[in-house]
Amino acid sequence: MDWTGDTHLVDGVDERGFVLKVDGRVVPGVLWTPPGAEGARPLVLIGHGATAHKRFGYVLSLARELVRGHGFAVVAIDGPGHGDRRAIPDADQMQIFSEFLGEWTREGSTDEAVADWRATLDAVRRLPEVGDGPVGYWGLSMGTIYGLPLVAADRRIQVAVFGLMGLVGPTRDRMGADAPRLTCPVLFIQQWDDSLIPRDSVAELFDAIGSVDKRLHASPGEHSAVPSEEFAFSARFLAHHLAPGGDELS
Amino acid sequence: MDWTGDTHLVDGVDERGFVLKVDGRVVPGVLWTPPGAEGARPLVLIGHGATAHKRFGYVLSLARELVRGHGFAVVAIDGPGHGDRRAIPDADQMQIFSEFLGEWTREGSTDEAVADWRATLDAVRRLPEVGDGPVGYWGLSMGTIYGLPLVAADRRIQVAVFGLMGLVGPTRDRMGADAPRLTCPVLFIQQWDDSLIPRDSVAELFDAIGSVDKRLHASPGEHSAVPSEEFAFSARFLAHHLAPGGDELS
Repeated sequence: MDWTGDTHLVDGVDERGFVLKVDGRVVPGVLWTPPGAEGARPLVLIGHGATAHKRFGYVLSLARELVRGHGFAVVAIDGPGHGDRRAIPDADQMQIFSEFLGEWTREGSTDEAVADWRATLDAVRRLPEVGDGPVGYWGLSMGTIYGLPLVAADRRIQVAVFGLMGLVGPTRDRMGADAPRLTCPVLFIQQWDDSLIPRDSVAELFDAIGSVDKRLHASPGEHSAVPSEEFAFSARFLAHHLAPGGDELS
Repeated sequence: MDWTGDTHLVDGVDERGFVLKVDGRVVPGVLWTPPGAEGARPLVLIGHGATAHKRFGYVLSLARELVRGHGFAVVAIDGPGHGDRRAIPDADQMQIFSEFLGEWTREGSTDEAVADWRATLDAVRRLPEVGDGPVGYWGLSMGTIYGLPLVAADRRIQVAVFGLMGLVGPTRDRMGADAPRLTCPVLFIQQWDDSLIPRDSVAELFDAIGSVDKRLHASPGEHSAVPSEEFAFSARFLAHHLAPGGDELS
């Protein structure tokens, strides 16, 4: 794990870029911690959606909320073919999305993304200001495609927020096989008028999740119209499960 | 509106029973207010589910939370054939439920229940300690069967919590016609493994609700297994919309 520059203090949060080599892949990431943090603390992994990147608006907002409001550490990495992993940085959204559909179809795509995340988790937990505290995961859409198999594979992750996904696409069988293996508390976010992800497929995926403590929140609107209240509830849900004596959900 | 006894102060809440005559029907109710309350305040109507009554456990808990936590007034009435409106008070649950299915089928059942509620609303708003503040409605299952048409009919009600119901049963057409007329913020509570109310019918009803601000929360388990967190969230949702500067939802 190599830092790509100095620590920047922005809006009350320490932010540091890094790169990590994983099986020959270069994985760029960002770590957010409270200013001058020392000692172990809860950690949240944020997996961005397709066409976004590790410092995309909602990733940054959620990371800062978790650091400032709860004293957590947060880490995000660029997904395959996204952010600093792009060969052609200035492609448009449709180009990036088309490439992602190709990547999603590629054999090994999920396993590599899971390996990238697990190596990131190993690396940041070796830092004294992160340590071996409890771990949560947050990721919608592509963040669920790769995040659900990650959480199923890594028992260090004790709580997860998924959503904007169903049993659809090239890895529907993989998601369908991994979902019953989940045991941690899960918040699942659905957009009721999502034209990308059919409602029935969302119900199938939510249904398949093995966790006893799971809940589905649906809001009107399209795939990308998740209301700010659900981001805020996500933060409270993660804090409730990761911080002893943390936020009450009620 | 006649009081049936003195005000009792129980667990920090003033409670008074009343009866109201509505088109020849005797409607028994309970009003909860903060101790010694004076002046207008938000009011929440609670409609209980089939086989329950106006002082059933979850009704009482929610009423006390809204009064103690937020200073609101709360009123509940016995549904048709329930509580003090029963001819034979000591019937078992199955007997009461069977009778309800008959009542639900009876022409005029919904209109009478709506009239009972509107008369109750008129009466309690004439009390100086309730007054003409904003009004919310909370009712699941039978509380939605009768409450959804009520909220569609009475624009004084500015926020509603519904759930455990779909476009099913003898009044499915009535609910389907009234749902698009709703305009207020709606929280809709679903039990994912509800064997009484099929999932598709829940989606149809939620879909039909006209409100721009609507959200669906689904939890695992059977019809009657609504988790305490959803009752608590209900209270916060009502308070957020009824009290200026009230609870944030996030």
